[in-house]
Amino acid sequence: MLKEAIYHRPKNQFAYAYTDNSLHIQLRTKRNDIDVVSLTYGDQFEFENNHWKRRSLDMQKSGSDELFDYWVVEVIPPQRRLRYAFHLKNNEQELFYTERGFSDSIHDDFSAYFCFPYHHPSDRFAAPDWVKNTVWYQIFPDRFANGNVENDPSGTLQWNSTEPTTSSVFGGDFEGVLQHLDYLVDLGITGIYFTPIFKARSNHKYDTIDYMEIDPQFGDKATFKRLVNECHKHGIKVMLDAVFNHCGEDFPPFLDVIKNRNSSKYKDWFHLITTDQDHPTYHTFAFEKTMPKLNTQNPEVKKYLVEVGQYWVREFGIDGWRLDVANEIDHQFWREFRHAVKAINKDVYLVGEVWHDAMPWLHGDQFDAVMNYPLANLLLRFFAYDAIGAEQFSQELQGYLHQYPRSVQEAAFNLLGSHDTPRLVNLARMNKQKVKLLTAFQLSFTGSPSIYYGDEIGLTGEQDPGCRKCMVWDKNARDLDMLNFSKKLISLRKTYPILANDGLFSILEASNAQNTICYSRETTKQLFIAIMNNHPARQTLELPLNLIDQHIINLLTMEEFAAHSTKITITLDSYDFAFLLIYKK
Amino acid sequence: MLKEAIYHRPKNQFAYAYTDNSLHIQLRTKRNDIDVVSLTYGDQFEFENNHWKRRSLDMQKSGSDELFDYWVVEVIPPQRRLRYAFHLKNNEQELFYTERGFSDSIHDDFSAYFCFPYHHPSDRFAAPDWVKNTVWYQIFPDRFANGNVENDPSGTLQWNSTEPTTSSVFGGDFEGVLQHLDYLVDLGITGIYFTPIFKARSNHKYDTIDYMEIDPQFGDKATFKRLVNECHKHGIKVMLDAVFNHCGEDFPPFLDVIKNRNSSKYKDWFHLITTDQDHPTYHTFAFEKTMPKLNTQNPEVKKYLVEVGQYWVREFGIDGWRLDVANEIDHQFWREFRHAVKAINKDVYLVGEVWHDAMPWLHGDQFDAVMNYPLANLLLRFFAYDAIGAEQFSQELQGYLHQYPRSVQEAAFNLLGSHDTPRLVNLARMNKQKVKLLTAFQLSFTGSPSIYYGDEIGLTGEQDPGCRKCMVWDKNARDLDMLNFSKKLISLRKTYPILANDGLFSILEASNAQNTICYSRETTKQLFIAIMNNHPARQTLELPLNLIDQHIINLLTMEEFAAHSTKITITLDSYDFAFLLIYKK
Repeated sequence: MLKEAIYHRPKNQFAYAYTDNSLHIQLRTKRNDIDVVSLTYGDQFEFENNHWKRRSLDMQKSGSDELFDYWVVEVIPPQRRLRYAFHLKNNEQELFYTERGFSDSIHDDFSAYFCFPYHHPSDRFAAPDWVKNTVWYQIFPDRFANGNVENDPSGTLQWNSTEPTTSSVFGGDFEGVLQHLDYLVDLGITGIYFTPIFKARSNHKYDTIDYMEIDPQFGDKATFKRLVNECHKHGIKVMLDAVFNHCGEDFPPFLDVIKNRNSSKYKDWFHLITTDQDHPTYHTFAFEKTMPKLNTQNPEVKKYLVEVGQYWVREFGIDGWRLDVANEIDHQFWREFRHAVKAINKDVYLVGEVWHDAMPWLHGDQFDAVMNYPLANLLLRFFAYDAIGAEQFSQELQGYLHQYPRSVQEAAFNLLGSHDTPRLVNLARMNKQKVKLLTAFQLSFTGSPSIYYGDEIGLTGEQDPGCRKCMVWDKNARDLDMLNFSKKLISLRKTYPILANDGLFSILEASNAQNTICYSRETTKQLFIAIMNNHPARQTLELPLNLIDQHIINLLTMEEFAAHSTKITITLDSYDFAFLLIYKK
Repeated sequence: MLKEAIYHRPKNQFAYAYTDNSLHIQLRTKRNDIDVVSLTYGDQFEFENNHWKRRSLDMQKSGSDELFDYWVVEVIPPQRRLRYAFHLKNNEQELFYTERGFSDSIHDDFSAYFCFPYHHPSDRFAAPDWVKNTVWYQIFPDRFANGNVENDPSGTLQWNSTEPTTSSVFGGDFEGVLQHLDYLVDLGITGIYFTPIFKARSNHKYDTIDYMEIDPQFGDKATFKRLVNECHKHGIKVMLDAVFNHCGEDFPPFLDVIKNRNSSKYKDWFHLITTDQDHPTYHTFAFEKTMPKLNTQNPEVKKYLVEVGQYWVREFGIDGWRLDVANEIDHQFWREFRHAVKAINKDVYLVGEVWHDAMPWLHGDQFDAVMNYPLANLLLRFFAYDAIGAEQFSQELQGYLHQYPRSVQEAAFNLLGSHDTPRLVNLARMNKQKVKLLTAFQLSFTGSPSIYYGDEIGLTGEQDPGCRKCMVWDKNARDLDMLNFSKKLISLRKTYPILANDGLFSILEASNAQNTICYSRETTKQLFIAIMNNHPARQTLELPLNLIDQHIINLLTMEEFAAHSTKITITLDSYDFAFLLIYKK
């Protein structure tokens, strides 16, 4: 056994509360090195005949990546307290693994065991339940629809009259969203994430001037309130963008610093470097001088921004905050922010913009989710770029699935593209079949999926400003096939929650030869199977499990058929896929 | 290169803020597998000639345990933001390690790199500075000294008249501590940790009846205030014991639940299981019915206990809280507790009772330290029990040193024994030379060392109640040699801060053949060397470094000598040690 590969350390994904009673315990071992792993556990205060009382549970091999196998078990501590160790076996060896390391025989001394001292629901990562069944739609407000030309700023361009530049304004507004709410309802989405709507200078509004005011080009507070209410009437949640890492250079406290320098009462609201130059120098977002970084460690700044967070929840009933550049703000700020905002509405969804490994923000004390770019990147590398084959994709996906607690996976904000990436069609090198595969995977995977406005009708565009084109409302100019496809997939996810977060995800097979993958979602009553042909050729695939005598429904055609043989084959066109559902007997 | 052994994940000990400007980055690799590791890093927004600008720093191999080498580097992010990767080399191979895994060449894409997004001092683990130079003395109040017989409860036994039982009371009190403050000042300690002093039924007072009152057997509030003030006058800090996991069964809210069952307004202050039996059943500490577990998730309980935490700091000026059974209370409670107590005095030291791996409590948002039983256990296995040899000791110590950030090590509450373990002399099987070795190690190691009352005069006793004997005030009945030894070692630590937390700790050599270890503490100006002979025979050891022409001071004898040869030998008696100090040229 390769001891160097064996890893466990309580908390993070390795030991966490999954429900209010149960814990998940995970172990990592070298790939194909261990045959059987069991968890030996007990309550550290429970003794029987002068011996510490222990129980045992087999662990399941829940997946493998290139280097490692992962083992998981759900355990209910009898008295909420848990001490545990791992018992590993293969043909040659037997080993015990505790907090003190490896040994050939099991300790009778509980103090050597790993410890999850007490399961408190208050420490459990628990995102709002509703996000598990939400399909998001991201709107860049200037580009979705212009419903009221009265509020167009001077210089507003004719809708879709030209390719956008970094400074163009097209007049999109809340009235436009209201006028097209039927479109969104018909599409089937159940949440809207708006990029910033507060008063700002730029078209993207990430340079806030006033966090308490709506930018007049989008409408007024009454219109916004009407928009939120209309959305709620249609079962659609509303999430806003909180840009707290930095403000715009026209933010009054910053203007005060520019004017009054060291004597400004807002001097400590920013990270000033010098104030004795012609112009103060200060830390910014990136090196963007128009976006001075706010000092979120300053209690006054904290108080102000926390009140912003509460205000829009309390007064307008918004359902979520997407937190811009969240990783560059201190953890302490986010803990206080969460506490305060959840005190107004515990069901508000808090999504941090963190592009990298986000475990430090996902312990339950800060965010409910992050924008899941690492997953997007992995899906794109396989489906869009053909940068990796099916087996590597499967391995990296398993690795990803074992990087976070399952509860975190279930609430993850799973986007494929956004206002910060090229359009999905462009990422897929204009191959719309690949876009469909990506969407089909996204909408049959755990998490809370998000569609970037226009992707559902095949909008194109390269990196910003190209990816921020006007939404197309001319029915003849839309990709209707893509739209119908999107509607169908959204509808399936909503009709069959096994595709959303009810079903446990497993990769059943990944073939490099055919470049195909087959995965399942499973509940106690249903089995869902997806087969994806990420190959330019039409191919016939064999299902990697025996479904004899099972009644199978093809979810895309609603055809039903019975399996009469132990082997079932499916023929798929180039870059096509099948979704099968079985009601267990 | 064994990829399976290579580990890094930001936060915990692998990437943390060490000062307000610098980060420590740590990497784990297979032992003796890699020759050179460097850190490639940059600011993710800094570009030069269209390429992401990177810098490089060599990492130092900072230690090895049985399986792994550890590499560490201190880095100052140029703009507080850091993206980084590891570049590993040995004779056969070169490898890059990023958040996305391993590759043969370095990515130009910063998004693949590990990320420490922004260094905020507010997120840095920062224990009060004073604890780094404190030597603690733990007092079990009933057993230190009876200074006032007026407050003795009925049934109080004559001082030291008998071996203690679990229920005996000997009348120790604050007046007794005040009367013997000169003894403590002479001993040299600079902090007293009192086990509980609040009103309770038992002799140990871990079954609190009133958190706002002092138990009358110890004195009144005025006496306690006088005690704190006198301690402060003599440069001695005072730490109390906060028993918040559970109360005593006489705690009025619990009595109310017993009386009023479901109609009690304190029903949710506890973890009730049933109230419909003859007697309610409820969760407790361990399975101890007299210690009902408090529901620290309940906002009322939280408010009450947080006020307790603030009260004794605010009104009496205590300097620290030792937090009983801290691991079984929710993290959320501790975050709020810390916030509230530090608002009264940011320099209060918070020490959690956590016997196992305590990383989840040591991120800067909860505790400043834990009671370091894992270190104690390791020292005992080598010095006291002879359960492991010098090499294994050295390896396990290296492993321990790489389990926590260095900042955490520097504030750790490093005890060797307590009221919950047998006496040190008994642990060392009555070999007092071994007790001296243990003490010498403890007092020349990083952290904040603590002496359990009486260990300094060789008090004996097995596990509770044996380890809670009365302090001996008859000068003829004390081990004066041990007392003088303790004084000397405490004095050395205070005179030469290199022995405390100024010097970087390294193991220079560990020999199984001789069962000796040699370690150093180093600053830019001084080098301290300790050599320990954990062997029954007198032995001559060769110093594992060349000190030619250096001027060396023997700190135990204050003899000075010059090294005239590249090899220096030291002869040590059975279980003896030497402390050498060199002022660098």
